[in-house]
Amino acid sequence: MATTRDRIITATNELFRRQGYNGTSLSQISEASEATIGSIYHFFPGGKEELAVAVVETTGEVYRQLFEAIVAEVEGPADGIRAFFAGAAAVLAESDYIDPCPIGTVAREVANTSEPLRLAAERAFASWIASAREFAVGAGAGPHEADRLATLFVATVEGAFVLSRTQRSPAALEAAGETFAHLLATIDAAVPGSHS
Amino acid sequence: MATTRDRIITATNELFRRQGYNGTSLSQISEASEATIGSIYHFFPGGKEELAVAVVETTGEVYRQLFEAIVAEVEGPADGIRAFFAGAAAVLAESDYIDPCPIGTVAREVANTSEPLRLAAERAFASWIASAREFAVGAGAGPHEADRLATLFVATVEGAFVLSRTQRSPAALEAAGETFAHLLATIDAAVPGSHS
Repeated sequence: MATTRDRIITATNELFRRQGYNGTSLSQISEASEATIGSIYHFFPGGKEELAVAVVETTGEVYRQLFEAIVAEVEGPADGIRAFFAGAAAVLAESDYIDPCPIGTVAREVANTSEPLRLAAERAFASWIASAREFAVGAGAGPHEADRLATLFVATVEGAFVLSRTQRSPAALEAAGETFAHLLATIDAAVPGSHS
Repeated sequence: MATTRDRIITATNELFRRQGYNGTSLSQISEASEATIGSIYHFFPGGKEELAVAVVETTGEVYRQLFEAIVAEVEGPADGIRAFFAGAAAVLAESDYIDPCPIGTVAREVANTSEPLRLAAERAFASWIASAREFAVGAGAGPHEADRLATLFVATVEGAFVLSRTQRSPAALEAAGETFAHLLATIDAAVPGSHS
């Protein structure tokens, strides 16, 4: 069912999550995706950099949809955000603390060395911030507070993944969930007629 | 004044900040530090991995001291934390958004591939959490709240660096400063006789 192009993107995503962008070679990608190097260049003429842009775009969109699905499923913004971080903690523990998100790793490695990849990561983060912003507005935040909370939320997700992986513990993701739930509950309390 | 060992550590720190652990070769380190490969192995018999552990340990200690110096200088915990994030934003902009901290990058790249490096990053993060915890207790937080805020603080610093670099904007660090100032001010208001 999966096309060769999809197989290459999926295999690259997994390799980046384990060993980062610079640590991953085209021959490893070829082996893991069962596609020849020639086939990789057929779909991605710009080689590893162009392939990485596609991985960042695909993953960015998948995670944006996942965030929106989780918070839509749970009643109330505070419980919604708690459920999101609890889900992230569970995924991390189940996967033996492999990075769930290659975007932050790639962003850190190449922010000063590849402008196309930096821009792809920036677009992915911007799409998450837009989703989180809409969620914060739905929870009763004013425009400035929604910007601030949404930006901080995306930063915290990225940072909590780093800390949780390094500590091999869900503590950072749990601390993030608890604090954002508190921040959203405080908005609710302060704004009569908000959506909670 | 700087010994050869110090020169090697400083050059490696700078290379990791620009291009990550996997993107940095021993010959680049040799060139940047004006030390031979033989000299690098003399000081670090385990090669790049052992050298990276030393970089993480040195940087972890420098940043811990920096955090404690900044918050000690400013009156009141809310303004102290705001000053910390504002300082980080200024450093990032001045350095043209080069990663100010190689530890998060190294941690993400090798959390699943090098146990000695993962443990070194974990010790660095733990020392920052301990400092931030003491600061939160000084601001009036109870033990559980201090644990949570300190863990979240370190996660947020790491994540806000990623986002600020990717966006080439201080917005994420400013959002973090504003939110932590608010969280600390809320503790102060709730706890009579706290240290603010």
